[in-house]
Amino acid sequence: MIQNIVLIGAGNLATQLALALVEKGIQVKQVYSRKLESASELAGKVNARFTNDLSQLVPEADLYIIAVKDSAIQEVLENLKLDESCLIVHTAGSIPMSVLEGFSNNYGVFYPLQTFSKSRKIDFADIPICIEANHPSNLLNLEKLGEKLSGSVNQINSEERKTLHLAAVFANNFVNHFYAVGAEILHDKKLDFDLLKPLIRETAEKIQTMHPFDAQTGPAKRDDQAIMQAQLKMLHNQPEFQKIYSFATESIFQLQQKHKHDLF
Amino acid sequence: MIQNIVLIGAGNLATQLALALVEKGIQVKQVYSRKLESASELAGKVNARFTNDLSQLVPEADLYIIAVKDSAIQEVLENLKLDESCLIVHTAGSIPMSVLEGFSNNYGVFYPLQTFSKSRKIDFADIPICIEANHPSNLLNLEKLGEKLSGSVNQINSEERKTLHLAAVFANNFVNHFYAVGAEILHDKKLDFDLLKPLIRETAEKIQTMHPFDAQTGPAKRDDQAIMQAQLKMLHNQPEFQKIYSFATESIFQLQQKHKHDLF
Repeated sequence: MIQNIVLIGAGNLATQLALALVEKGIQVKQVYSRKLESASELAGKVNARFTNDLSQLVPEADLYIIAVKDSAIQEVLENLKLDESCLIVHTAGSIPMSVLEGFSNNYGVFYPLQTFSKSRKIDFADIPICIEANHPSNLLNLEKLGEKLSGSVNQINSEERKTLHLAAVFANNFVNHFYAVGAEILHDKKLDFDLLKPLIRETAEKIQTMHPFDAQTGPAKRDDQAIMQAQLKMLHNQPEFQKIYSFATESIFQLQQKHKHDLF
Repeated sequence: MIQNIVLIGAGNLATQLALALVEKGIQVKQVYSRKLESASELAGKVNARFTNDLSQLVPEADLYIIAVKDSAIQEVLENLKLDESCLIVHTAGSIPMSVLEGFSNNYGVFYPLQTFSKSRKIDFADIPICIEANHPSNLLNLEKLGEKLSGSVNQINSEERKTLHLAAVFANNFVNHFYAVGAEILHDKKLDFDLLKPLIRETAEKIQTMHPFDAQTGPAKRDDQAIMQAQLKMLHNQPEFQKIYSFATESIFQLQQKHKHDLF
């Protein structure tokens, strides 16, 4: 059973995961970050030791969680000096479990499908935690750890996780960007972004019970050419937004057509 | 003071608005729809008369609300046989108030900035209601009506309303489409869309207190070329999604650059 961990990373995900684990009685023994200040800051929050030297990790934690940005995982692995029996996981959506092969005999993935910020406290209770491991006993340990945090622990392989991450880029990163575009459009005309917030919240709530295809509304769905042309014209000073508007509109239209054909 | 209304339209917005008004003690005297069945269905819910004949509207309601699709407003107006003292509003984001000129001496706009479905009950309490009128006394009446429904009643002119509607197309219609794209991507690989729902909810909650520019995360924000190339490759069977992916990524990058320059 996993009772303590070492956290490699001190970014958004690492911070929220550490806070959540400590709340559930898991000890964070040590926090590593390339920047000593970041390691120290997070370590202070969870009463852990800290280091910026990978060769100085404490040797006998139940689990080592690599929660650094994707492009830094390889370098972290190459600098670990852990016993090969140590259980190591990474937390990345698009990185296969196999990158851990050869660095330990016990490894896996612990991927919470959520967006994290350092400053915004996250309740893990309904976050899907996607786990994968090289051995059933490791999987079981990760499952038990996941279940301490969340009611949704899912065995997901590396291919599936990549697909989830891709879908998440649309549903989170691109969606957030469209919030930002909305904010820009309002800001340019000195209108308050607060006016959009209830709409944004309801848009996200609606698809909790309704399929997004059925929830689609708006000029593109209605094929209201007059409004679409007028709105494109309003964006003439923002050719980037104009381009996105055209493509999103076209894409809505195509998806509607596709599903119309599905019905017959 | 507005104590009763006639509702011209029986679609998503008309339905939710009628239900909300009745709950606040406003009488819906009559519902019109081009389709008698739709008029009858909504009228049944709010204990009103109904008709599919615009020349048969009851003559002395305090307010006539036109809540039909944008492209039908003109035709409705041309077929109204109301006294020119009647107060008439439309509920459309992108249609200027001036379309009502000449059809009555008292007119305005009553635009609730929200997404509506017939079947999903909406709480109006925090929905921004955007009002405009041709005369201060009409404005006051609309303001009082709005305040019965919502804590956020805003005087917004036709130009501003058009901008709000454009921003709403991004933050609602396009956002919902990206939920749908996420659902498609998962469906193709037999993964459950439910896995994305907590992420979608948190993405919308996050910007309630954080500016979306600051809330941006993901491969495009980090300029993680390896992930972006890999994800584009995963979409090779869906060239439409691939195109959207490229444009959204490029647009995130540009907005980040723009704001970076703002700081110096």
